[in-house]
Amino acid sequence: MIKFVRFDAGEGPVYGVLEGDVVTEIEGSIFENWAKGKNKYLLKEVKLLSPCEPTKIVCVGTNYREVVMKKGESLPEEPVIFLKPSTSVIGPEGKIVIPEGANEVNFEAELAVVIKKKAKDISHEEATEYILGYTCGNDITAKDFMEKGKPWTKAKCFDTFMPIGPCITAGIDGKNLGIRMYHNGNLVQNSNTSDMIFNVPQLISYISKIMTLNPGDVISTGTPPGKGVLKPGDVVEVEIENIGRLRNYAY
Amino acid sequence: MIKFVRFDAGEGPVYGVLEGDVVTEIEGSIFENWAKGKNKYLLKEVKLLSPCEPTKIVCVGTNYREVVMKKGESLPEEPVIFLKPSTSVIGPEGKIVIPEGANEVNFEAELAVVIKKKAKDISHEEATEYILGYTCGNDITAKDFMEKGKPWTKAKCFDTFMPIGPCITAGIDGKNLGIRMYHNGNLVQNSNTSDMIFNVPQLISYISKIMTLNPGDVISTGTPPGKGVLKPGDVVEVEIENIGRLRNYAY
Repeated sequence: MIKFVRFDAGEGPVYGVLEGDVVTEIEGSIFENWAKGKNKYLLKEVKLLSPCEPTKIVCVGTNYREVVMKKGESLPEEPVIFLKPSTSVIGPEGKIVIPEGANEVNFEAELAVVIKKKAKDISHEEATEYILGYTCGNDITAKDFMEKGKPWTKAKCFDTFMPIGPCITAGIDGKNLGIRMYHNGNLVQNSNTSDMIFNVPQLISYISKIMTLNPGDVISTGTPPGKGVLKPGDVVEVEIENIGRLRNYAY
Repeated sequence: MIKFVRFDAGEGPVYGVLEGDVVTEIEGSIFENWAKGKNKYLLKEVKLLSPCEPTKIVCVGTNYREVVMKKGESLPEEPVIFLKPSTSVIGPEGKIVIPEGANEVNFEAELAVVIKKKAKDISHEEATEYILGYTCGNDITAKDFMEKGKPWTKAKCFDTFMPIGPCITAGIDGKNLGIRMYHNGNLVQNSNTSDMIFNVPQLISYISKIMTLNPGDVISTGTPPGKGVLKPGDVVEVEIENIGRLRNYAY
């Protein structure tokens, strides 16, 4: 298990590995070859940034069985996907800006997959080769702007609406991870990625048959029950087993 | 009026200016400062590429009055927007790949705006400062995959679904340009950008209040009546006054 981070120790963004509370800057690329460098920092000395810089984020709608059961719907036949732009990404401790006119902004804890290498027309058997690792994602949505029959773009694509972090954990299996959301300290989502309707390899295969995925692109794999409404001053924390806790503030 | 192109003369992608049938490579950046360099080519000697490399394409739905009139609907109160990813972009003469299972793939001639500099929370009065220029766009859509109540992502985001080109024309007014589509040589769309419901400055302002626009990002401003169905072997040509003709083939 390796935890990659992107951070700023005062000289601009660099990549590193996190071991305990020590961050070691790396040489090379987390997507190809890398080695530990000389510079080491205490975690508390650095500012963590979004752990990668996706060219796009592909989000998945309804993808937890429990959500479908609670609604009394039947399971979807194929994944429901939508895009968020690179400009929606923020990192740990970053501020989620609630847009003017939005009264019902939802938070949603999600397992986010980071793509390792260019993926086009990939089978689900091959898909694991294309995974660099996993991070926490928070799919922020201004429900006020989700109009029937219209694209979801306005509701989903505001700047700051895709917090990711704190690290990318490589070498773990995404199929059985505890996933939780704390809203102002209260546990409001509590599930396991084993409840996903379409698992990560299936999602990578499905999406890569529509659009090429680039290194660093993120697939946010849907949220379990319990999403809630975010108000200015709130703190939201997505916690996923073996990854850590992604904390953000609403503004 | 300046026509910027991106092209490959055998040594990889470079930017240039097009004057008549001569392409002159430039030094610097089309987004900031540039000057003509020494290398010149005949247009027919080079391969034109997509004239910029957007980080995202923001497309606009119903935005021509005549389309709304024909449907007998009322004018939209605000723009309907959706995203295409960078991976959907192809250039002049590029092949549009019709996806498996898609029987109703539409072509749509659109005026595409190229953003000059980072735009966030821009008023429509300021918007023209943020325009580098205009190019032709073809909003390809697999209508088969547009399901009621679902995001438009699968229908809109396939690789090759956003042809742009042949050049970016700077120094023209986008408010009064003839726009046409030829399908296998037949004129099937024939309108003027003056028929837009939301004009370019209004669109830039609207979108920039949702998401930051980066240099090179593209806004595709909607299509006039006459969109049609693309079959393998077809040729589609978007022609816009003062820009030129963007030709692509369906595959």
